[in-house]
Amino acid sequence: MSTTSLDPTVTAVATQFDLATGLTEARPSLQRRLSDMSGMYADTAALSAAVDADDVLTYEFYDFGVPSLETEVAYGTSITYPGKVGDEYFMTKGHFHTRLESAEIYLCLSGQGLMLMESPEGDVQVEEFRPGRSVYVPGRYAHRSINTSPDEPLITFFAFPGDAGHDYGTIETKGFRRIVLERDGAPVLVDNPRWQS
Amino acid sequence: MSTTSLDPTVTAVATQFDLATGLTEARPSLQRRLSDMSGMYADTAALSAAVDADDVLTYEFYDFGVPSLETEVAYGTSITYPGKVGDEYFMTKGHFHTRLESAEIYLCLSGQGLMLMESPEGDVQVEEFRPGRSVYVPGRYAHRSINTSPDEPLITFFAFPGDAGHDYGTIETKGFRRIVLERDGAPVLVDNPRWQS
Repeated sequence: MSTTSLDPTVTAVATQFDLATGLTEARPSLQRRLSDMSGMYADTAALSAAVDADDVLTYEFYDFGVPSLETEVAYGTSITYPGKVGDEYFMTKGHFHTRLESAEIYLCLSGQGLMLMESPEGDVQVEEFRPGRSVYVPGRYAHRSINTSPDEPLITFFAFPGDAGHDYGTIETKGFRRIVLERDGAPVLVDNPRWQS
Repeated sequence: MSTTSLDPTVTAVATQFDLATGLTEARPSLQRRLSDMSGMYADTAALSAAVDADDVLTYEFYDFGVPSLETEVAYGTSITYPGKVGDEYFMTKGHFHTRLESAEIYLCLSGQGLMLMESPEGDVQVEEFRPGRSVYVPGRYAHRSINTSPDEPLITFFAFPGDAGHDYGTIETKGFRRIVLERDGAPVLVDNPRWQS
């Protein structure tokens, strides 16, 4: 079906994602390997060894370059692969929004995991990801996706206000107050020994 | 896993959707039957007969009551069922956003169909829905989901700025400039004979 443009000013954008992999060929993904995660995992020796042995891809996501305006909606998929560094599950770096009050919605398309959230005042919240489960991250909360599956990628679709921006630096410097480790085959939330107040 | 709240102010919200049906038991859906679509279909006689015969559900969607703020993200699923009124496919009413410049992102989870979009100046755009395909509706464009499948529901996940609001009245009064009919088993875009300038 053809598109008719009587007075074209903007164009709708369609993007084909593969629901099984979360990937699209529409543009390159942003990729984070273990070597990009320096300082993010509690077991620094395990991270160092894993980087030397096989610097695997731990997660990737998309940025479609939506204009930085409050009336726009930034969106994309995020794929966190299964694996661990020591006892700590593969995870995203996590970030605050630069416009701190900006919320974000995630819809889990496949896999299983957790959304770890933390406010500047230290309120910590955790929600589970399962296929079809959406998680609404309130404004002011840093958020990190964690894949707790032994073998499946955690695939989510996300959307947030176009002017939210990303503040990665705070988490890169201070870390989250809590981290998620595997204990007896299940995830547990524990204090982060490397957290810096 | 328990949630620790040191200084609880807001709470993350998780909602389980059924990816096969698009539905959730978290709250009641908003439902639109044929009798709610008065004036929306070109073939008024066919609509009237269909309402009398069997006033079926044509689409349903969710409103989670996100605060009307530009830093929030309204979201939910929309399910448009297969069917036709005369030669015109089942569709949503369609709407502008009250804050006209507000964009919206849709991700098709299953089914097939079209997103029909129209600006106040008369620019018409159409994008296809297929599983895994996202459609970014630019700000200022009214938008309507149309199910072109003979038997499958069209299921989408949508997200838009919390303060966008809905203007249904303009479309209810004027209609879209173009409508989508089935011709020889395929969708075609034609002028709306009932459109009012």
